[in-house]
Amino acid sequence: MSLITSRSNPKVKLIRGLQARRRRDRTRLFLIEGLRLVEEARSVGVPIEQLVVAPQVIGGAVWSRLQRVQAPFLEVTPEVLASISPRHAQDGVVAVARQRFARLDDVRLRGDECFVAMNRVTEPWSIGNIMRTCDAVGAQGIILLGDATDPYYPAAVRASLGAVFSQLVVKANFEELAHWKRQQGCLLVGTSPGGLVDYREADYRGPLVVMTGGERVGLTLEEQALCDLMVRIPMVGRCESHHVAVATGLVLYEMLRQRTAPMARGSVCRNGKLGMESIAEATRSGKQD
Amino acid sequence: MSLITSRSNPKVKLIRGLQARRRRDRTRLFLIEGLRLVEEARSVGVPIEQLVVAPQVIGGAVWSRLQRVQAPFLEVTPEVLASISPRHAQDGVVAVARQRFARLDDVRLRGDECFVAMNRVTEPWSIGNIMRTCDAVGAQGIILLGDATDPYYPAAVRASLGAVFSQLVVKANFEELAHWKRQQGCLLVGTSPGGLVDYREADYRGPLVVMTGGERVGLTLEEQALCDLMVRIPMVGRCESHHVAVATGLVLYEMLRQRTAPMARGSVCRNGKLGMESIAEATRSGKQD
Repeated sequence: MSLITSRSNPKVKLIRGLQARRRRDRTRLFLIEGLRLVEEARSVGVPIEQLVVAPQVIGGAVWSRLQRVQAPFLEVTPEVLASISPRHAQDGVVAVARQRFARLDDVRLRGDECFVAMNRVTEPWSIGNIMRTCDAVGAQGIILLGDATDPYYPAAVRASLGAVFSQLVVKANFEELAHWKRQQGCLLVGTSPGGLVDYREADYRGPLVVMTGGERVGLTLEEQALCDLMVRIPMVGRCESHHVAVATGLVLYEMLRQRTAPMARGSVCRNGKLGMESIAEATRSGKQD
Repeated sequence: MSLITSRSNPKVKLIRGLQARRRRDRTRLFLIEGLRLVEEARSVGVPIEQLVVAPQVIGGAVWSRLQRVQAPFLEVTPEVLASISPRHAQDGVVAVARQRFARLDDVRLRGDECFVAMNRVTEPWSIGNIMRTCDAVGAQGIILLGDATDPYYPAAVRASLGAVFSQLVVKANFEELAHWKRQQGCLLVGTSPGGLVDYREADYRGPLVVMTGGERVGLTLEEQALCDLMVRIPMVGRCESHHVAVATGLVLYEMLRQRTAPMARGSVCRNGKLGMESIAEATRSGKQD
């Protein structure tokens, strides 16, 4: 195999182009930067199409680890690799992989399964970190409403620490979500500073979808109307809202708390009423979840 | 007053230079982008030195609101304003303000007061969002250890939604923090995936400092040794850590939970032992905090 030394090599240009959303959408490919993420992708079966490596940078141990990936190698100079991944290819490897999306129709929620639905979340950092938190609490995946959010943005892939590989990524529109929600009988919880219920007092047991709006816009009125429950995160200071990644983290960890420990405070039933019976029920159910 | 039409006007160049850390450090000035943040800064007494406005953009109502700021105006074209603040001056105004730092020696912790100490947090997004969460839970401020973290980075100011104006920003080195902590008798809690105690089971009442490490590096061994308690946030997935802004948010909201509601689960005493007496104590103390 010959070493590619030119940044304008056609293959290199195609791969570098995957930094751009449009090229990713057209090819359904994306970039995985760095050895750690590449190995994480391999270990959960992400289809890797190409490995771009800088032999001058990587040592023998890394070579043998990369052999396991079973994808064709493209050997380039460190400068060419840096032109593909300017700040995240210190360890000499970048992979090109195929995007995976699931259809909502194929998703069946069982037991305590949980998804995060999001619309107009535009910062790669936000979506990456929400996926990372989904992974941390054992959620199944994310549902992308509309096209504003691209989980395969290189910065989102990095911020997810690889959660984008193991979480299910579902694309759907609002009507599909509304239909699917009725079919599944899951609880759809939205967050808003104007939510009626303190997020710590809602009952998150059973199949759950947490719905988050964009960084500056929040949920639309139509989205709020679809939610079974709008929760608010209490704030005692001057700021009027939380960042979507922090807010989602708080709700998901409240869910995890309820699923791993007996509920001990007044909780809100599915019908939205405060009820002592749900406390008793929670106490009975104990750690069964 | 004459309208400045050139991007290379010396005043404009000086102000634009505040996008760079070095210029901010030298001048102790920083940029506040957009009307909403400028008004928030004014309302909490941030010393604003200069208003840069594009008269072609702002309407009469905004003019009269800006008069209240009581700072000299610099009138520029929209193009010149965009050269200072490329993406965040749609409403035609940017302010130059003086940075404020407090000395740790001047800070006395009382009652339930709380600070977040951080070191090597380098993403402006992270520090801005941590400050935003500090504001939301009623914390007093942040303590910056070392020089890696600049809360006056324009993106940090924006991400903080103005919390950087109202939170106390303290600069200190590690030795000063160690000395001050002993003087104040506060609880210093660090977070780490290897922490001994589940973060939901620690007792956060009384004066508290939550210590966070950088995005990729976490807390040093020396910092961990200074902590009274290292807590971990449970994770059931494949990722090995949380983003620092999400982790800090979870700990701060656990603190808020304990301060606004009776504790109901087994809690960890200050000496690190699980104790039923602390549950009883928590139940007695009820909502007094």
